[in-house]
Amino acid sequence: MKRSIKVFAPATVANVVCGFDVLGFAVNEPGDEVIMRLTDKPGVSLLKITGDEGRLPLDPDKNTVSAIAKHYLQHIGQPNAGIEIELHKKMPIGSGLGSSSASTVAGLFAINTLFDNQLSNKELIPFAMKGEELACGYGHADNVAPALMGGFVLIRSYSPLDIISLPFPAELYAAIVYPEVDVPTKDARQMIRSKVYLKDAVTQWGNVAGLVSGLFMNDYELIGRSMTDVLVEPTRAILIPDFYVLRAMAMETGAIGFGISGSGPSVFALTRDKETAKKITQNLQQHLKSLSINSLAFVSEVNKKGPVVLD
Amino acid sequence: MKRSIKVFAPATVANVVCGFDVLGFAVNEPGDEVIMRLTDKPGVSLLKITGDEGRLPLDPDKNTVSAIAKHYLQHIGQPNAGIEIELHKKMPIGSGLGSSSASTVAGLFAINTLFDNQLSNKELIPFAMKGEELACGYGHADNVAPALMGGFVLIRSYSPLDIISLPFPAELYAAIVYPEVDVPTKDARQMIRSKVYLKDAVTQWGNVAGLVSGLFMNDYELIGRSMTDVLVEPTRAILIPDFYVLRAMAMETGAIGFGISGSGPSVFALTRDKETAKKITQNLQQHLKSLSINSLAFVSEVNKKGPVVLD
Repeated sequence: MKRSIKVFAPATVANVVCGFDVLGFAVNEPGDEVIMRLTDKPGVSLLKITGDEGRLPLDPDKNTVSAIAKHYLQHIGQPNAGIEIELHKKMPIGSGLGSSSASTVAGLFAINTLFDNQLSNKELIPFAMKGEELACGYGHADNVAPALMGGFVLIRSYSPLDIISLPFPAELYAAIVYPEVDVPTKDARQMIRSKVYLKDAVTQWGNVAGLVSGLFMNDYELIGRSMTDVLVEPTRAILIPDFYVLRAMAMETGAIGFGISGSGPSVFALTRDKETAKKITQNLQQHLKSLSINSLAFVSEVNKKGPVVLD
Repeated sequence: MKRSIKVFAPATVANVVCGFDVLGFAVNEPGDEVIMRLTDKPGVSLLKITGDEGRLPLDPDKNTVSAIAKHYLQHIGQPNAGIEIELHKKMPIGSGLGSSSASTVAGLFAINTLFDNQLSNKELIPFAMKGEELACGYGHADNVAPALMGGFVLIRSYSPLDIISLPFPAELYAAIVYPEVDVPTKDARQMIRSKVYLKDAVTQWGNVAGLVSGLFMNDYELIGRSMTDVLVEPTRAILIPDFYVLRAMAMETGAIGFGISGSGPSVFALTRDKETAKKITQNLQQHLKSLSINSLAFVSEVNKKGPVVLD
């Protein structure tokens, strides 16, 4: 049995424009790292967090990584095992890129590896969802499922949980830009209307079906024209500076499709090649700079592996 | 150029439970037949209709087959061509099996063949939708698109029209039972609420995405568990005698999934083999008989061809 492990888990783009709460994919960067050690002192302790600018709780019952590690130990019947955790945030918090999910998944993958992979990555999803509930007040799976499984993931059903790995074109890149403005997930969810017109819902599930079909068919055009959200984006776009200008720029620069990542404020574009993705992030960052808004940018293939052990 | 032609077009199961207004598939039986002849007398005339018990209009401007034939002739720049039409209904009207669609599609395929296939089947879809508008007051595509293209069809978008042919497992049978009670499409639509809860819509598009994935993956289990409709079926089921009893019987007899065909009152089950499909229709018809309700039953593979020239 290993005594110490360092794990990376990827950031994720939830919703993928039309698939609110049911679709998500993972990217190779950014992501978070967790270092975990077995110790002889019983209990889960959270030694340190870096990269969070002091925003995350150090109380092991309130921090998702340590709290979910406790759940895991209870589940495998070793509630008195001794664990030390370091969390190294390598991505922005509250960015719409599944920051809490990346931390939780890195922690879960680490502890599951230390305890001889007693659960599959898919079986870890419900644990990770508990972490999301703790962090965001809502136990969604559209970040944790792709973070754990890699690639594109469909959450067909929450009750019972039914997760499907979707195929995707071999050449598919994500251009992500995070404008440094504050959009807490809880507030972003509360803005959304609880009732919608059936005709808009029909438009939405036509697009969800189109996006899934495009992924199976390697049809970039179909993927692109399905990336339309008539229900949630119109509301969330308000929180993102010049959202429609950013979209127009991304599409003119050659994006297949463009939208809000999760609940924002990060935006993302899908492209067929890395060069186009880079150009998009450059153009968008330049525009945000002209608005005096700082931003971070990430260009990456769609992640194919989920969490990995480092070193 | 042929002077006379006889065409069969298939019945269709719209919605496929979760895919309200966006999914449909065609079956080999029942279906309608149209005989069409070129004549020297200018204009479109409707010579006779059989099998409709006098329920369909003989006025060539009101009957969808002749009215859409006129549209077609105008479109190809031959408004004064002479056409004689016979419509032979071989399926029940108002059954939820795309009766008007089968007639319109048979007529369109016939006239397009007589005029050297100037349009593709896909290009005929907007004409057929005009026919649906005339017959049902609503120009939907979820019957006409599968009737014209065969197989499973996704209508990703109505504006602009975007139709995707979906793959499906080679072994897939439909068991259809039509209880002879009256459910006009117009009334069935008006019963549906115009606003729905977003959380129910999310459940629905998770299932739509699951059904499409199941079709691509040949995953019968996934197809089956995705065939759930939380939005429309609860309302429409009221119009169908003992709907939930019929569902339970179908599922116990081995159906993959079960639901209402279109706006009902026909119900359908998908199965992996013909024998199970037959047993399901037998059990359901027997139950309906115990309620003193007459019924018709059809067992068929999923139709792979769309309309065909007979003789």
